[in-house]
Amino acid sequence: MPIFEKARELALIRSSAEVIGWDQETYLPPAAQEYRAAQLAWLSSRAHELATSDAWKADLEAANPGSDPKNNANLRELRREFKRASKLPVDLIARESTATSLAKHAWADARQRSNFPIFAPHFETLLGIAREKAALWGYTGEPYDALLEGYERGTSTAAVAALFDAMKPALRETAANAVEKSASRPASLPPGPYPIKAQQRLNAQIAESIGFDFQAGRIDTTTHPFCSTLGPHDVRLTTRYDEADFTSSLFGVLHEAGHGMYEQGLPASDFGLPSGSAVSLGIHESQSRLWENHVGRSRAFWQRWYPICREIFPQLADFPIDAFLDFLWRAEFSPVRVEADEATYDLHIILRFGLERRLLNGDLSVADVPAAWNESFRDLFGFTPKNDAVGCLQDIHWSMGGLGYFPTYTLGNINSAQLFAAARKDLAIATACDAADYAPLLSWLRKNVHAHGATLDPADLMEHATGKVPATGDYLAHLQSRYL
Amino acid sequence: MPIFEKARELALIRSSAEVIGWDQETYLPPAAQEYRAAQLAWLSSRAHELATSDAWKADLEAANPGSDPKNNANLRELRREFKRASKLPVDLIARESTATSLAKHAWADARQRSNFPIFAPHFETLLGIAREKAALWGYTGEPYDALLEGYERGTSTAAVAALFDAMKPALRETAANAVEKSASRPASLPPGPYPIKAQQRLNAQIAESIGFDFQAGRIDTTTHPFCSTLGPHDVRLTTRYDEADFTSSLFGVLHEAGHGMYEQGLPASDFGLPSGSAVSLGIHESQSRLWENHVGRSRAFWQRWYPICREIFPQLADFPIDAFLDFLWRAEFSPVRVEADEATYDLHIILRFGLERRLLNGDLSVADVPAAWNESFRDLFGFTPKNDAVGCLQDIHWSMGGLGYFPTYTLGNINSAQLFAAARKDLAIATACDAADYAPLLSWLRKNVHAHGATLDPADLMEHATGKVPATGDYLAHLQSRYL
Repeated sequence: MPIFEKARELALIRSSAEVIGWDQETYLPPAAQEYRAAQLAWLSSRAHELATSDAWKADLEAANPGSDPKNNANLRELRREFKRASKLPVDLIARESTATSLAKHAWADARQRSNFPIFAPHFETLLGIAREKAALWGYTGEPYDALLEGYERGTSTAAVAALFDAMKPALRETAANAVEKSASRPASLPPGPYPIKAQQRLNAQIAESIGFDFQAGRIDTTTHPFCSTLGPHDVRLTTRYDEADFTSSLFGVLHEAGHGMYEQGLPASDFGLPSGSAVSLGIHESQSRLWENHVGRSRAFWQRWYPICREIFPQLADFPIDAFLDFLWRAEFSPVRVEADEATYDLHIILRFGLERRLLNGDLSVADVPAAWNESFRDLFGFTPKNDAVGCLQDIHWSMGGLGYFPTYTLGNINSAQLFAAARKDLAIATACDAADYAPLLSWLRKNVHAHGATLDPADLMEHATGKVPATGDYLAHLQSRYL
Repeated sequence: MPIFEKARELALIRSSAEVIGWDQETYLPPAAQEYRAAQLAWLSSRAHELATSDAWKADLEAANPGSDPKNNANLRELRREFKRASKLPVDLIARESTATSLAKHAWADARQRSNFPIFAPHFETLLGIAREKAALWGYTGEPYDALLEGYERGTSTAAVAALFDAMKPALRETAANAVEKSASRPASLPPGPYPIKAQQRLNAQIAESIGFDFQAGRIDTTTHPFCSTLGPHDVRLTTRYDEADFTSSLFGVLHEAGHGMYEQGLPASDFGLPSGSAVSLGIHESQSRLWENHVGRSRAFWQRWYPICREIFPQLADFPIDAFLDFLWRAEFSPVRVEADEATYDLHIILRFGLERRLLNGDLSVADVPAAWNESFRDLFGFTPKNDAVGCLQDIHWSMGGLGYFPTYTLGNINSAQLFAAARKDLAIATACDAADYAPLLSWLRKNVHAHGATLDPADLMEHATGKVPATGDYLAHLQSRYL
């Protein structure tokens, strides 16, 4: 159908921008930033032009998918995306773009000086734009629904709140116990250096062994690890290196390889169509968290890999595997989300979700954010961050207008546990995982998650794969078994 | 003027394609080739569409540059390019594109099997297309003029032939003497390994010291060294490494840095306009050859750098600088152009130029190319290549339809010597060069070559910079002083 051809052309443009954006993060000479932004802007204008063109609309309307279920799903999703995109007037998009450029600078400045009022007026503007967008998109429950839909389609704020509320007491208990237990655990590895070249070889070996395809991907170095898809057979991971702790780069790779194997598992021939695309952030994050935490922090995994690490890094010779696992499972109440461990991470998300929801509903004013943050933080963590830089100013998301995004991190954690538990019900998969052979697990994910692309809503995908919609049981059981 | 804005937009598209093409050569995963070709095709279609659009034509026609000389030069060159491009019908471009795709495969196959008849029908097709193009573009002397104009505007086949004919006896004499002298020179360095990491550090240090700006560029690794401009402050060099010979990667860097410093020296604010673009291949090659041969193979250069190399590579401790220079100046009659040294290189070009000219004029048939090649080769080098793989099938250029391109290599050599000699007439530059300080030389090139972009024809640029149009005197004097 012509609309599918147009969608493939759009993917050509967007993936070209991904190539150029990837290079910007990895190898761009410092003086080249400004022109690079112009190159990206040109491509994104072309993408926007195409996806909002009259021809696109006409092809969407004229399309007749027949009885093929995949064609129907693709057309349904393309129509849904177009409807959502076409509700925003061009001037609103332009205003948002200007506001986020300014806000990002103000936020960086505010965080550096730990001075929330520098950021506040920008946040006010972005909140106003987010409210406008929510109103234009429409919602049944509350404004937050309309934003969340953009990241996790088919769910609702109320549903997320119910999940989070149900988890909160158990999460707090597990976190407190984990932090307490951690006091007696090694806080660091034996002294480095763990040479970067050796880390890179180890990471590549492990990534390959869990199923990341280096014929269709690579690993490079950036300050902030990410995964980017540059084409149907071109998935790029990045990580960062710490010579004092080889697990830092490795867990970066395991996390990003989880994202990357999802991308590599999508039907390549449908690249650019919904059936060849990832469905949501909450499903994407389930894949990264599954490989990072359920596989990468398991005893079985290290029974295979720790002896190899000891050959590579002689300083581990006298550091027993149990001490190493204790090191991996250490937990502490940190004020900063990106430094948080598995045991405490979701408390950070619950805090942000609560504040964002109140902001959108008008129950909290921007000026009151620092106080509200500190109050919630004290409630959840038992202490107050020493300043706003490590409190309400720590995340870049709000400065980018990314309201409604945070909950997908915890949805990803919930989904990861539920998928891992469901896969392990197959005895062959469980046995293989216990021997650190993950090929059967990856096959299961390929078939039950990746192969569907974005043809099912996330909750339906979860139900299809695991027999139930996203629920907290498996995740809490996992945390409790690891930390209690 | 609107046409200048359009030219800048065209540069955005083309430089985006350069980014994507650079990544293809450096970091692309093997399985991603096919989609990458589609991304590049999309961008080059957009570039073609824009540069041949009615709007482009109308803006070109309507433009009124006023009295500003730069505006006038830019408009003149944009009109010239458009006129040339618009003479080729779309179907001819499509036929050429198909023919070169097929020819490249056939050529690779033919070369591998040393079987010219496999390539011959493809070459016949491409020669026919080249003749068609020449006829459409038009010429005053002979068809070759029209092709050469695309690489070296403002010159003529007759002028090139006159230069080459004038050089030939002296070149043959120098080459023969150099090869004879070489018999007594070291054919290799002390045994390696010369570790790649150490080579990379040395190359970067040297590139920086001669003036390559790493804030606006970088060096990566590829099988075939090249230089690519990804934006006005983004020039990427590549080289390849041989652990047995550190000079291999270094001279790759010196050559490509010569190209790169030219690109970095073009007026960045005019990126995309003729005044911000390199003027011709013969001028581009003059820059690479100047830094590679006149600077990089000079005694003064190594008086500074050889002691540093000895610190980095201890195996050089007992290898005197004179032996090292003899190694750099070794010469031999090789059948293969890309392996040829400075003393013998131009003979390879004279051979190709002669054959191409006869092919275009219809004085030589494709079927007779192997015999004609061998005859010319014997005449110039005194022996016959052992087979066509290292004879008439060695170069990729013909399989890409690149007839008319080869002479620019020798024009580059001629220009490099003439520019270097002219710059050294300034005593301060000569004194600095003799102390291996190249900042004054680079300033001179910036001012006399780079700053002009493509506003002057190559011969005018040479005359402007050196006081005379391209002539062989300085180049022959250089070769004779080095090799006789």
